[in-house]
Amino acid sequence: MGRWEPGARERLREAALELFMERGFEQTMVADIAQRAGVTARTFFRHFADKREVLFDGSADLAQQVQDIVEKMPPTTSALEVVAAVLDAVAELAGDNRERAQARQAVIAANTDLRERELIKQAALTAALTDALRRRGVDTLEAGLAAETGTAVFRVAFSQWGDATESRDLRDVMRETLDRLRVLAAAQ
Amino acid sequence: MGRWEPGARERLREAALELFMERGFEQTMVADIAQRAGVTARTFFRHFADKREVLFDGSADLAQQVQDIVEKMPPTTSALEVVAAVLDAVAELAGDNRERAQARQAVIAANTDLRERELIKQAALTAALTDALRRRGVDTLEAGLAAETGTAVFRVAFSQWGDATESRDLRDVMRETLDRLRVLAAAQ
Repeated sequence: MGRWEPGARERLREAALELFMERGFEQTMVADIAQRAGVTARTFFRHFADKREVLFDGSADLAQQVQDIVEKMPPTTSALEVVAAVLDAVAELAGDNRERAQARQAVIAANTDLRERELIKQAALTAALTDALRRRGVDTLEAGLAAETGTAVFRVAFSQWGDATESRDLRDVMRETLDRLRVLAAAQ
Repeated sequence: MGRWEPGARERLREAALELFMERGFEQTMVADIAQRAGVTARTFFRHFADKREVLFDGSADLAQQVQDIVEKMPPTTSALEVVAAVLDAVAELAGDNRERAQARQAVIAANTDLRERELIKQAALTAALTDALRRRGVDTLEAGLAAETGTAVFRVAFSQWGDATESRDLRDVMRETLDRLRVLAAAQ
Protein backbone atom coordinates (compact mmCIF):
# COMPACT_ATOMS: atom_id res chain seq x y z
CA MET A 1 0.00 0.00 0.00
CA GLY A 2 3.06 2.25 0.43
CA ARG A 3 2.96 3.76 -3.03
CA TRP A 4 -0.67 4.81 -2.51
CA GLU A 5 0.07 6.75 0.64
CA PRO A 6 0.95 10.16 -0.85
CA GLY A 7 -2.32 12.03 -1.16
CA ALA A 8 -4.24 9.42 0.83
CA ARG A 9 -5.66 11.96 3.26
CA GLU A 10 -6.94 14.12 0.43
CA ARG A 11 -8.42 11.12 -1.42
CA LEU A 12 -10.09 9.95 1.78
CA ARG A 13 -11.69 13.37 2.24
CA GLU A 14 -13.01 13.35 -1.33
CA ALA A 15 -14.22 9.75 -1.16
CA ALA A 16 -16.00 10.36 2.15
CA LEU A 17 -17.79 13.44 0.88
CA GLU A 18 -18.89 11.68 -2.30
CA LEU A 19 -20.25 8.73 -0.34
CA PHE A 20 -21.98 10.91 2.28
CA MET A 21 -23.74 12.72 -0.58
CA GLU A 22 -24.64 9.49 -2.43
CA ARG A 23 -25.76 7.32 0.48
CA GLY A 24 -26.11 9.60 3.47
CA PHE A 25 -23.70 9.96 6.38
CA GLU A 26 -25.20 7.21 8.56
CA GLN A 27 -25.24 4.66 5.75
CA THR A 28 -21.57 5.16 4.86
CA MET A 29 -19.02 2.93 6.59
CA VAL A 30 -15.30 3.57 7.04
CA ALA A 31 -14.60 0.48 4.93
CA ASP A 32 -16.58 2.03 2.04
CA ILE A 33 -14.61 5.25 2.26
CA ALA A 34 -11.27 3.46 2.36
CA GLN A 35 -12.25 1.28 -0.59
CA ARG A 36 -13.30 4.22 -2.75
CA ALA A 37 -10.08 6.06 -1.86
CA GLY A 38 -8.06 2.97 -2.77
CA VAL A 39 -6.55 2.50 0.70
CA THR A 40 -7.06 0.10 3.60
CA ALA A 41 -9.24 0.85 6.64
CA ARG A 42 -6.01 0.87 8.61
CA THR A 43 -4.76 3.77 6.50
CA PHE A 44 -8.06 5.54 7.11
CA PHE A 45 -7.52 5.31 10.86
CA ARG A 46 -3.98 6.61 10.54
CA HIS A 47 -5.51 9.85 9.28
CA PHE A 48 -8.89 10.14 11.04
CA ALA A 49 -10.35 8.94 14.35
CA ASP A 50 -13.73 8.22 12.73
CA LYS A 51 -15.84 9.07 9.68
CA ARG A 52 -17.18 12.21 11.35
CA GLU A 53 -13.70 13.68 11.72
CA VAL A 54 -13.18 13.62 7.95
CA LEU A 55 -15.68 16.48 7.72
CA PHE A 56 -13.88 18.56 10.35
CA ASP A 57 -10.32 18.02 9.16
CA GLY A 58 -8.12 21.03 9.79
CA SER A 59 -10.33 22.82 12.29
CA ALA A 60 -7.76 22.48 15.11
CA ASP A 61 -5.11 24.04 12.84
CA LEU A 62 -7.54 26.83 12.05
CA ALA A 63 -7.77 27.99 15.68
CA GLN A 64 -3.96 28.20 15.77
CA GLN A 65 -3.86 30.06 12.47
CA VAL A 66 -6.46 32.54 13.71
CA GLN A 67 -4.36 33.25 16.78
CA ASP A 68 -1.21 33.66 14.65
CA ILE A 69 -2.96 36.18 12.39
CA VAL A 70 -4.17 38.23 15.35
CA GLU A 71 -0.71 38.29 16.90
CA LYS A 72 0.80 39.65 13.69
CA MET A 73 -1.57 42.60 13.38
CA PRO A 74 -0.18 46.05 14.29
CA PRO A 75 -1.18 47.08 17.82
CA THR A 76 -3.11 50.10 16.54
CA THR A 77 -5.47 48.04 14.35
CA SER A 78 -9.05 48.15 15.68
CA ALA A 79 -10.74 44.99 16.96
CA LEU A 80 -13.11 44.81 14.01
CA GLU A 81 -10.27 45.33 11.52
CA VAL A 82 -8.42 42.43 13.14
CA VAL A 83 -11.56 40.36 12.72
CA ALA A 84 -11.77 41.46 9.06
CA ALA A 85 -8.21 40.20 8.52
CA VAL A 86 -9.12 36.89 10.15
CA LEU A 87 -12.16 36.58 7.86
CA ASP A 88 -9.93 37.17 4.82
CA ALA A 89 -7.64 34.37 5.93
CA VAL A 90 -10.52 32.01 6.72
CA ALA A 91 -12.03 32.77 3.30
CA GLU A 92 -8.77 31.77 1.66
CA LEU A 93 -8.68 28.48 3.56
CA ALA A 94 -12.37 27.59 3.34
CA GLY A 95 -13.20 29.09 -0.01
CA ASP A 96 -10.93 27.23 -2.43
CA ASN A 97 -13.64 24.85 -3.60
CA ARG A 98 -17.25 25.99 -3.62
CA GLU A 99 -18.73 22.66 -4.71
CA ARG A 100 -16.94 20.78 -1.98
CA ALA A 101 -17.98 23.36 0.61
CA GLN A 102 -21.61 23.11 -0.55
CA ALA A 103 -21.53 19.32 -0.41
CA ARG A 104 -20.06 19.42 3.09
CA GLN A 105 -22.72 21.87 4.26
CA ALA A 106 -25.49 19.70 2.80
CA VAL A 107 -24.16 16.62 4.61
CA ILE A 108 -23.90 18.51 7.91
CA ALA A 109 -27.33 20.14 7.58
CA ALA A 110 -28.96 16.71 7.20
CA ASN A 111 -27.63 15.32 10.50
CA THR A 112 -28.24 16.79 13.96
CA ASP A 113 -25.05 15.34 15.48
CA LEU A 114 -22.97 16.87 12.71
CA ARG A 115 -24.73 20.23 13.09
CA GLU A 116 -24.00 20.19 16.81
CA ARG A 117 -20.37 19.36 16.14
CA GLU A 118 -20.10 22.16 13.58
CA LEU A 119 -21.54 24.63 16.09
CA ILE A 120 -19.15 23.48 18.83
CA LYS A 121 -16.20 23.90 16.45
CA GLN A 122 -17.38 27.39 15.52
CA ALA A 123 -17.80 28.26 19.20
CA ALA A 124 -14.26 27.03 19.93
CA LEU A 125 -12.95 29.20 17.10
CA THR A 126 -14.88 32.20 18.44
CA ALA A 127 -13.38 31.58 21.89
CA ALA A 128 -9.86 31.35 20.40
CA LEU A 129 -10.40 34.65 18.60
CA THR A 130 -11.78 36.27 21.77
CA ASP A 131 -8.69 35.16 23.72
CA ALA A 132 -6.35 36.42 21.03
CA LEU A 133 -8.06 39.84 21.05
CA ARG A 134 -7.90 40.02 24.84
CA ARG A 135 -4.16 39.36 24.68
CA ARG A 136 -3.94 42.51 22.55
CA GLY A 137 -5.49 44.44 25.43
CA VAL A 138 -9.04 44.60 24.05
CA ASP A 139 -11.47 44.50 26.98
CA THR A 140 -13.48 41.31 27.57
CA LEU A 141 -16.83 42.61 26.36
CA GLU A 142 -15.43 44.16 23.19
CA ALA A 143 -13.25 41.12 22.44
CA GLY A 144 -16.25 38.80 22.80
CA LEU A 145 -18.42 41.07 20.72
CA ALA A 146 -15.88 41.46 17.90
CA ALA A 147 -15.25 37.70 17.80
CA GLU A 148 -18.96 36.78 17.88
CA THR A 149 -19.65 39.37 15.20
CA GLY A 150 -16.90 37.86 13.06
CA THR A 151 -18.49 34.43 13.44
CA ALA A 152 -21.89 35.90 12.56
CA VAL A 153 -20.44 37.47 9.40
CA PHE A 154 -18.72 34.21 8.52
CA ARG A 155 -21.93 32.17 8.87
CA VAL A 156 -24.04 34.57 6.83
CA ALA A 157 -21.39 35.05 4.15
CA PHE A 158 -20.68 31.33 3.87
CA SER A 159 -24.34 30.59 3.40
CA GLN A 160 -24.66 33.36 0.79
CA TRP A 161 -21.58 32.11 -1.03
CA GLY A 162 -23.11 28.64 -1.21
CA ASP A 163 -26.13 30.04 -3.03
CA ALA A 164 -26.42 28.99 -6.67
CA THR A 165 -26.90 32.60 -7.82
CA GLU A 166 -23.70 33.83 -6.13
CA SER A 167 -20.64 33.95 -8.38
CA ARG A 168 -18.13 36.02 -6.35
CA ASP A 169 -15.42 34.36 -4.32
CA LEU A 170 -15.86 33.83 -0.59
CA ARG A 171 -13.47 36.61 0.37
CA ASP A 172 -15.50 39.20 -1.55
CA VAL A 173 -18.76 37.92 -0.08
CA MET A 174 -17.26 38.10 3.44
CA ARG A 175 -16.10 41.67 2.89
CA GLU A 176 -19.45 42.75 1.53
CA THR A 177 -21.21 41.06 4.45
CA LEU A 178 -18.99 42.89 6.94
CA ASP A 179 -19.74 46.17 5.12
CA ARG A 180 -23.46 45.37 5.30
CA LEU A 181 -23.05 44.85 9.04
CA ARG A 182 -21.45 48.28 9.37
CA VAL A 183 -24.39 49.85 7.52
CA LEU A 184 -26.90 47.86 9.57
CA ALA A 185 -25.28 48.91 12.84
CA ALA A 186 -25.12 52.56 11.81
CA ALA A 187 -28.88 52.73 10.99
CA GLN A 188 -31.21 53.97 13.71
CA MET B 1 -49.95 13.16 44.88
CA GLY B 2 -52.69 15.38 43.46
CA ARG B 3 -52.35 18.15 46.02
CA TRP B 4 -48.64 18.45 45.18
CA GLU B 5 -49.25 19.03 41.50
CA PRO B 6 -49.61 22.83 41.44
CA GLY B 7 -46.13 24.22 41.01
CA ALA B 8 -44.62 20.79 40.34
CA ARG B 9 -42.96 21.91 37.12
CA GLU B 10 -41.33 24.86 38.85
CA ARG B 11 -40.21 22.72 41.81
CA LEU B 12 -38.78 20.11 39.42
CA ARG B 13 -36.77 22.81 37.64
CA GLU B 14 -35.35 24.07 40.93
CA ALA B 15 -34.64 20.61 42.30
CA ALA B 16 -32.90 19.55 39.08
CA LEU B 17 -30.68 22.61 39.01
CA GLU B 18 -29.72 22.19 42.68
CA LEU B 19 -28.82 18.55 42.14
CA PHE B 20 -26.91 19.20 38.90
CA MET B 21 -24.84 21.78 40.82
CA GLU B 22 -24.31 19.51 43.84
CA ARG B 23 -23.58 16.19 42.12
CA GLY B 24 -23.02 17.00 38.48
CA PHE B 25 -25.44 16.43 35.60
CA GLU B 26 -24.38 12.84 34.79
CA GLN B 27 -24.61 11.71 38.42
CA THR B 28 -28.14 13.01 38.91
CA MET B 29 -31.02 10.62 38.19
CA VAL B 30 -34.63 11.50 37.40
CA ALA B 31 -35.66 9.69 40.58
CA ASP B 32 -33.41 12.02 42.64
CA ILE B 33 -34.95 15.10 41.03
CA ALA B 34 -38.50 13.87 41.59
CA GLN B 35 -37.73 13.00 45.22
CA ARG B 36 -36.24 16.40 46.00
CA ALA B 37 -39.20 18.11 44.32
CA GLY B 38 -41.60 15.97 46.36
CA VAL B 39 -43.25 14.33 43.36
CA THR B 40 -43.14 10.91 41.72
CA ALA B 41 -40.98 10.04 38.73
CA ARG B 42 -44.25 9.66 36.83
CA THR B 43 -45.02 13.31 37.52
CA PHE B 44 -41.54 14.22 36.32
CA PHE B 45 -42.22 12.53 33.00
CA ARG B 46 -45.56 14.31 32.65
CA HIS B 47 -43.55 17.56 32.50
CA PHE B 48 -40.23 16.63 30.88
CA ALA B 49 -39.04 13.99 28.40
CA ASP B 50 -35.73 13.55 30.26
CA LYS B 51 -33.43 15.31 32.75
CA ARG B 52 -31.75 17.27 29.98
CA GLU B 53 -35.03 18.90 28.93
CA VAL B 54 -35.41 20.48 32.39
CA LEU B 55 -32.55 22.80 31.47
CA PHE B 56 -34.16 23.83 28.16
CA ASP B 57 -37.71 24.32 29.37
CA GLY B 58 -39.51 27.06 27.49
CA SER B 59 -37.14 27.36 24.54
CA ALA B 60 -39.80 26.24 22.03
CA ASP B 61 -42.17 28.93 23.38
CA LEU B 62 -39.37 31.45 23.02
CA ALA B 63 -39.09 30.97 19.25
CA GLN B 64 -42.84 31.62 18.95
CA GLN B 65 -42.60 34.69 21.19
CA VAL B 66 -39.73 36.06 19.12
CA GLN B 67 -41.80 35.71 15.96
CA ASP B 68 -44.81 37.37 17.63
CA ILE B 69 -42.67 40.35 18.71
CA VAL B 70 -41.28 40.80 15.20
CA GLU B 71 -44.76 40.68 13.66
CA LYS B 72 -46.00 43.42 15.97
CA MET B 73 -43.23 45.90 15.12
CA PRO B 74 -44.18 48.81 12.81
CA PRO B 75 -43.13 48.16 9.20
CA THR B 76 -40.78 51.15 9.20
CA THR B 77 -38.67 49.88 12.11
CA SER B 78 -35.13 48.96 10.95
CA ALA B 79 -33.93 45.36 11.13
CA LEU B 80 -31.52 46.09 13.97
CA GLU B 81 -34.18 47.96 15.94
CA VAL B 82 -36.45 44.93 15.61
CA VAL B 83 -33.60 42.82 16.94
CA ALA B 84 -33.14 45.29 19.82
CA ALA B 85 -36.82 44.86 20.74
CA VAL B 86 -36.41 41.08 20.65
CA LEU B 87 -33.37 41.35 22.93
CA ASP B 88 -35.41 43.43 25.40
CA ALA B 89 -38.08 40.75 25.49
CA VAL B 90 -35.58 37.94 25.83
CA ALA B 91 -33.87 39.82 28.66
CA GLU B 92 -37.18 40.03 30.47
CA LEU B 93 -37.78 36.29 30.10
CA ALA B 94 -34.23 35.09 30.78
CA GLY B 95 -33.12 37.71 33.25
CA ASP B 96 -35.52 37.34 36.16
CA ASN B 97 -33.12 35.30 38.27
CA ARG B 98 -29.40 35.85 37.94
CA GLU B 99 -28.36 33.09 40.34
CA ARG B 100 -30.46 30.53 38.56
CA ALA B 101 -29.16 31.66 35.18
CA GLN B 102 -25.56 31.41 36.44
CA ALA B 103 -26.15 27.93 37.87
CA ARG B 104 -27.71 26.79 34.60
CA GLN B 105 -24.76 28.17 32.60
CA ALA B 106 -22.27 26.44 34.90
CA VAL B 107 -24.05 23.09 34.47
CA ILE B 108 -24.17 23.48 30.68
CA ALA B 109 -20.54 24.62 30.41
CA ALA B 110 -19.36 21.46 32.22
CA ASN B 111 -20.97 19.05 29.76
CA THR B 112 -20.27 18.86 26.01
CA ASP B 113 -23.66 17.34 25.13
CA LEU B 114 -25.43 20.14 26.97
CA ARG B 115 -23.26 22.78 25.30
CA GLU B 116 -24.09 21.30 21.90
CA ARG B 117 -27.78 21.31 22.75
CA GLU B 118 -27.61 24.94 23.91
CA LEU B 119 -25.91 25.93 20.66
CA ILE B 120 -28.51 24.08 18.57
CA LYS B 121 -31.32 25.84 20.47
CA GLN B 122 -29.66 29.22 19.91
CA ALA B 123 -29.22 28.40 16.22
CA ALA B 124 -32.91 27.48 15.97
CA LEU B 125 -33.84 30.78 17.59
CA THR B 126 -31.57 32.66 15.19
CA ALA B 127 -33.24 30.87 12.27
CA ALA B 128 -36.71 31.76 13.63
CA LEU B 129 -35.68 35.41 13.92
CA THR B 130 -34.20 35.38 10.39
CA ASP B 131 -37.45 33.97 8.99
CA ALA B 132 -39.52 36.55 10.86
CA LEU B 133 -37.37 39.38 9.47
CA ARG B 134 -37.64 38.00 5.94
CA ARG B 135 -41.42 37.97 6.25
CA ARG B 136 -41.16 41.74 6.88
CA GLY B 137 -39.44 42.07 3.50
CA VAL B 138 -35.86 42.32 4.80
CA ASP B 139 -33.54 40.67 2.24
CA THR B 140 -32.00 37.30 3.07
CA LEU B 141 -28.48 38.51 3.76
CA GLU B 142 -29.56 41.41 5.96
CA ALA B 143 -32.10 39.27 7.82
CA GLY B 144 -29.47 36.63 8.55
CA LEU B 145 -26.95 39.24 9.56
CA ALA B 146 -29.33 41.10 11.89
CA ALA B 147 -30.45 37.84 13.52
CA GLU B 148 -26.91 36.48 13.92
CA THR B 149 -25.80 39.83 15.31
CA GLY B 150 -28.65 39.72 17.83
CA THR B 151 -27.56 36.26 18.93
CA ALA B 152 -23.97 37.49 19.22
CA VAL B 153 -25.08 40.40 21.41
CA PHE B 154 -27.20 38.06 23.52
CA ARG B 155 -24.32 35.65 24.13
CA VAL B 156 -21.83 38.36 25.05
CA ALA B 157 -24.31 40.27 27.23
CA PHE B 158 -25.51 37.14 28.98
CA SER B 159 -21.96 36.17 29.83
CA GLN B 160 -21.19 39.69 31.06
CA TRP B 161 -24.38 39.74 33.15
CA GLY B 162 -23.32 36.49 34.80
CA ASP B 163 -20.08 38.10 35.96
CA ALA B 164 -19.84 38.62 39.71
CA THR B 165 -18.83 42.28 39.28
CA GLU B 166 -21.89 43.11 37.13
CA SER B 167 -24.83 44.56 39.06
CA ARG B 168 -27.11 45.91 36.29
CA ASP B 169 -30.08 43.94 35.04
CA LEU B 170 -29.83 41.87 31.88
CA ARG B 171 -31.85 44.29 29.79
CA ASP B 172 -29.43 47.14 30.52
CA VAL B 173 -26.42 44.95 29.81
CA MET B 174 -27.98 43.85 26.50
CA ARG B 175 -28.64 47.47 25.49
CA GLU B 176 -25.13 48.53 26.37
CA THR B 177 -23.71 45.58 24.45
CA LEU B 178 -25.73 46.50 21.38
CA ASP B 179 -24.49 50.10 21.70
CA ARG B 180 -20.93 48.81 21.96
CA LEU B 181 -21.51 46.85 18.77
CA ARG B 182 -22.65 50.02 17.01
CA VAL B 183 -19.47 51.81 18.12
CA LEU B 184 -17.31 48.84 17.16
CA ALA B 185 -18.87 48.63 13.69
CA ALA B 186 -18.50 52.40 13.13
CA ALA B 187 -14.74 52.39 13.92
CA GLN B 188 -12.33 52.09 10.99
